[in-house]
Parts: sequence; structure tokens; C-alpha cells
Amino acid sequence: MWKNVEHIGIAVKDLESVNEIYTKLFGEAPYKMESVETEQVDTSFFKIGHTKIEFLSASDENSAIAKFIEKRGEGIHHIAFEVEDIHHELDRLQKEGFQFTRPEVFKGADNKLVCFVHPKSANGVLVELCQEIKE
Amino acid sequence: MWKNVEHIGIAVKDLESVNEIYTKLFGEAPYKMESVETEQVDTSFFKIGHTKIEFLSASDENSAIAKFIEKRGEGIHHIAFEVEDIHHELDRLQKEGFQFTRPEVFKGADNKLVCFVHPKSANGVLVELCQEIKE
Repeated sequence: MWKNVEHIGIAVKDLESVNEIYTKLFGEAPYKMESVETEQVDTSFFKIGHTKIEFLSASDENSAIAKFIEKRGEGIHHIAFEVEDIHHELDRLQKEGFQFTRPEVFKGADNKLVCFVHPKSANGVLVELCQEIKE
Repeated sequence: MWKNVEHIGIAVKDLESVNEIYTKLFGEAPYKMESVETEQVDTSFFKIGHTKIEFLSASDENSAIAKFIEKRGEGIHHIAFEVEDIHHELDRLQKEGFQFTRPEVFKGADNKLVCFVHPKSANGVLVELCQEIKE
């Protein structure tokens, strides 16, 4: 079961100027900044209602975010949906023929298990499925 | 005050195949289809938690959606945020220097008042502000 839009990921060049612009826009400041070394990104999080807005900037020129910006410019990068049972969904969707960027569930940022439906399978949208890790 | 991510708009070529693909992905069918002649688009709506996913296809070759797809291919087109007082926000943000696609609030689809921050002002993101019209 798909529960909510957990966050929207936006690829940007410079987090500092983004924080300034979006603090004005939303009328409130980011509540968290986090570096994710495994993904080679720095992140900044805002929250509007039930959904986080996650800005991502590349911390290495080989990062997927650097490549995205080089190709398309700054902009919306992915949508992340919170699901009830991520292993069940990956299994179900692979059987339905959806392609994933990696054919497995793995640990992402922000204490989550994640997997990504490839944009080729979803009309150009990089769809993240995520589920919070409960200790 | 910014209340919630009301919907995410996704530009696609063919609504029929999108409905089939995303019904499999989400595990549920679209709850509404609507044509918006003033915007030259046909739309299909899914709902996940508190947020609608709105697929848009061009009903005319001059539609903004047709131009978007020609330039960038299918993909995420805009994020719409529900705000408490859209006239107040437009006024506040214009004073902050944000550019809007039209410098006014107007009637959009789905019984809403809307305005759009230009992607140039918001790191490549087309940001819609919306407020439900209460009779």
C-alpha cells in the first residue's frame, strides 16, 4: 500500500542560495541539513504539511545529481512515496515488469529503506519507494 | 502560510497508457479525469495520502505541456502547494522579488485559485500556489 508523498527531491547547484530563496518563498527555514556520502550529495530539508522538500547538491562531480544538472539544469529530480511494505512492493512491481535502478531494497538517507523505479518504466519520473527503518 | 503539497503535475504524452501504468504502480486507479480547455490539457488524477498526482497531456499542439515535452520529454512538470491566503502570498512574494508567470491570481483547474512562481525565480522549479474556491 502506498501511503503518502514522503518527499520531493530537487537538484540544485548551491544549497546556501537555495536555503535563502526557499526560506523567503515558504516563509520558514530548513529544519535539517545532512550530507550523504554514499550518494555524494549534500541535502537541505524543508517541511510543508505532510511532505518534505529535499534539496540535493552534488558533493562530487561524479554524483548522479551533478550529471542530472549538467544534462537538464536545476529542477525536480524525483518523487518519494512512503509505502507500507517496501519488499512486498519491489517484488510485486518487478513481477509487473517495472524496471528498478537497482533490483533491490537498500539503505538510503534519512533513516529509510529505499528503491527506485527507473524513469523508463514510469513516464520519465524517477519514483522512489521508501519505508522508515524502525529499530 | 503554506499548508500542504496539494498536487504534483506530471507531463505525459498519452493519458490512457499512463493510467494503465500508474494503476499498476500505485495499486489503485485514477479517481478522476478532467479536460481543462483554457489550459489546453487533459488530466488524470490519482491520490496518494494527502497529495494528488495530476497527469497532464496536451489537447492542442500549442499547449504549454506540448512544448514542455518537446523540449524535455515526459516528466515532472510542477509542484502545487496549498496556501492559506493566495492573494497575500502573491503580494508578499512579489515584494520579495519573485517573478510569476502571470502577475495575478486566476482560476485554475479543480476549483482552485492559482498563481505560478516562474522557474527562473525558484531554481528551475515551476511552483504553483493554490487555494480552494469556497462558494
